[in-house]
Amino acid sequence: MDQLFHLPISPACRKVRLALGEKGHEVELVEERDWEGRREFLALNPAGEVPVLLEESGRTICGATPIVEFLEDSVPDRPLLPGDAYARAEARRLAEWFDKKFAEEVSLPLIHEKVTKRFMSAVEGGGSPDMAVVRATLYNVRYHLDYISYLMEDRRWLAGEAMSLADITAAAHLSCLDYIGDVPWSQFPQAKEWYVRLKSRPSFRALLADHVPGMPPPRVYANLDF
Amino acid sequence: MDQLFHLPISPACRKVRLALGEKGHEVELVEERDWEGRREFLALNPAGEVPVLLEESGRTICGATPIVEFLEDSVPDRPLLPGDAYARAEARRLAEWFDKKFAEEVSLPLIHEKVTKRFMSAVEGGGSPDMAVVRATLYNVRYHLDYISYLMEDRRWLAGEAMSLADITAAAHLSCLDYIGDVPWSQFPQAKEWYVRLKSRPSFRALLADHVPGMPPPRVYANLDF
Repeated sequence: MDQLFHLPISPACRKVRLALGEKGHEVELVEERDWEGRREFLALNPAGEVPVLLEESGRTICGATPIVEFLEDSVPDRPLLPGDAYARAEARRLAEWFDKKFAEEVSLPLIHEKVTKRFMSAVEGGGSPDMAVVRATLYNVRYHLDYISYLMEDRRWLAGEAMSLADITAAAHLSCLDYIGDVPWSQFPQAKEWYVRLKSRPSFRALLADHVPGMPPPRVYANLDF
Repeated sequence: MDQLFHLPISPACRKVRLALGEKGHEVELVEERDWEGRREFLALNPAGEVPVLLEESGRTICGATPIVEFLEDSVPDRPLLPGDAYARAEARRLAEWFDKKFAEEVSLPLIHEKVTKRFMSAVEGGGSPDMAVVRATLYNVRYHLDYISYLMEDRRWLAGEAMSLADITAAAHLSCLDYIGDVPWSQFPQAKEWYVRLKSRPSFRALLADHVPGMPPPRVYANLDF
């Protein structure tokens, strides 16, 4: 079976897991703490980062965007991108919004402070979270939930009428925050309704079963009624 | 004519300009200092960032990856991605290497210190460059030139036998450094030979004619024999 080297609370890895789930492609998950710089892992991906898809054939595909686009190229049914070039550009624009803007302003600093630093040694940069950074991310997330709510006013999914790469990218980021327990869903009912629809999809099940040792998710994390 | 809102010393914008050049798609360039947050520009791209392609029809495509993939979808001849799914993944892996790793370790901090801060007011964060940051980027760039040299040992272009998205992405980043005058080409002859080949392509001409007011490029910037 193909293997996915990943981290559970990583938006890039969760995006790939959602894409694999949507495409019906089963993989064995292998957790890789990429900051440790394990030599065998660097041989798979010289960039030294998860996610990496290792095929049974021994071939590797490295990086979230290359893996998702590879799945889209090689399993064209159950598409994650619409057929029209403009609609594809809109899905990719919103995917980039979350992978760059949301990542910088919210998910990456928050995950670093509240998750990664727990598992790092003092030499690697571990320690207790910097609460000023955490507070800034929790302030910023509201702006993005507002943007999702705005888009939901006249669209069924983020990029239009069909579920797309934009939705799985946004959900990958937000589901990490949801695990940490930091999304003010109740104040953004339209964003919440969109997220409930995503959370109900079979591709989401594996994510909802995640359990980081020593860091259990809040009770509502796996609930569809939250 | 379509317009491209851009900044001259921006790897993301240069990547789009190279892709447009390779596809033979002429545009009018409009410089946009995106840190100023101009209202009309935010109406074109809510993310408030260059590059943005504004078509004569009034349609916009926002962000470097969405624009380049849009060009690839809508102008399939003169491809920037190979036909085979694995080869496409390799081109995208290397594009991501430069857009994430090289960007973080070298180009974005260096451009911020040596270019952007010149044009920002003190309130916006402008001022003289932080030389510790500049030195760190000049140290890091050697590792990436070494990686290009390594790839050139058994490939004609970065991702294989054909020029691809990987090459234009890497060249977009390196050409910004070249404008600032900070690439130790002479110590990396294989990387230099690859860059000379790219620099000789017609798509590169417009980049070589760039001239940032008050900040002329070094004499060798536009030379093919450097």
